[in-house]
Amino acid sequence: MNMNYEECIKACLECMKACNSCFDACLNEEDIKMMARCIRLDRECADICSLAAKAMQSNSPLVKEICLLCADICEKCGEECKKHSHHEHCLQCAESCFKCAEFCRKMVS
Amino acid sequence: MNMNYEECIKACLECMKACNSCFDACLNEEDIKMMARCIRLDRECADICSLAAKAMQSNSPLVKEICLLCADICEKCGEECKKHSHHEHCLQCAESCFKCAEFCRKMVS
Amino acid sequence: MNMNYEECIKACLECMKACNSCFDACLNEEDIKMMARCIRLDRECADICSLAAKAMQSNSPLVKEICLLCADICEKCGEECKKHSHHEHCLQCAESCFKCAEFCRKMVS
Amino acid sequence: MNMNYEECIKACLECMKACNSCFDACLNEEDIKMMARCIRLDRECADICSLAAKAMQSNSPLVKEICLLCADICEKCGEECKKHSHHEHCLQCAESCFKCAEFCRKMVS
Repeated sequence: MNMNYEECIKACLECMKACNSCFDACLNEEDIKMMARCIRLDRECADICSLAAKAMQSNSPLVKEICLLCADICEKCGEECKKHSHHEHCLQCAESCFKCAEFCRKMVS
Repeated sequence: MNMNYEECIKACLECMKACNSCFDACLNEEDIKMMARCIRLDRECADICSLAAKAMQSNSPLVKEICLLCADICEKCGEECKKHSHHEHCLQCAESCFKCAEFCRKMVS
Repeated sequence: MNMNYEECIKACLECMKACNSCFDACLNEEDIKMMARCIRLDRECADICSLAAKAMQSNSPLVKEICLLCADICEKCGEECKKHSHHEHCLQCAESCFKCAEFCRKMVS
Repeated sequence: MNMNYEECIKACLECMKACNSCFDACLNEEDIKMMARCIRLDRECADICSLAAKAMQSNSPLVKEICLLCADICEKCGEECKKHSHHEHCLQCAESCFKCAEFCRKMVS
């Protein structure tokens, strides 16, 4: 594994965790109707973060394309979570998403 | 599910099948050393094709970005498989990959 | 690919499609609060069905264990969807889940 | 997220990393022919470890069944890697696999 990947992998795994927790928490919220888009994006973002970690850990020939997709979805998920930042889990998720997007873009450039 | 997705989903599932079969067959080839890159790309391509089918079937907010990634990897996998077209499984896989890439690009445009 | 797998793979891919569609439809329902467990199980079931199809298509050494897990989750998802069978998408999903569970158990035995 | 999951999630993510690295390293080995089963199991094990982490992080209703599958595949992958322990990556992977299997079984019991 390329050592330059270390920090980016860490950010992806942090974001995966935040998104999976937020997905679970949103499904338990009273105002779940408002969280529908958040629920979708959380799950999708968690899946792509884990895909990006896998791509870096296994030196995938597609690592750049996958990390760019990861940055795209992290930004969308972060924007959505930011709207619900009165929920602690959404606030944390937004932060992890924006950080992960930043690391993914830096890694690719 | 958007009905325009039907053909593209079908191409993704065909490609997923061809890539998974090619992955298995390559691992059983005598000249496995030459197939190392094919083995990598087959597995990665199968995973992304299934991700793209999921994105279309569930109306993901990221459907375009995911289908573009799918087209990228299908083209890389198809190019690699084409080099080994004396293996029937690689020939079939290359065809499925190029077809899937075409449908994904058409769907996005 | 083992030809005995054909029907089981087909059932898994049908179920994956039904679950992804049901996930999307549930997130758009007015009574989304009642659908929270359905949303969870739909997504999880779709993911495992695609994993099971991959395992069969690539002759995974873990094919039996994965298909048993697939049967377990299909039954749980089917039971939950059956409770909401006034929604057409849940009714269809329940049917696909039970059929897939049956094929997976038959394949393993 | 259930706090009892913490250690098990950590073991899954360690194992995912070891398996992805081993997959990559095996594909670059001279004696790749001998590593074919290792390559298969590495990839499959990495995927299931990430699935298990996701299940715990999102309080999946299927968390026990998924962690049991994870233990099964970790044991198979660990046994295979142990045979190739003259390769440092296989030795490390075997250790991570057995540790992850142990945590998954403990978590479920």
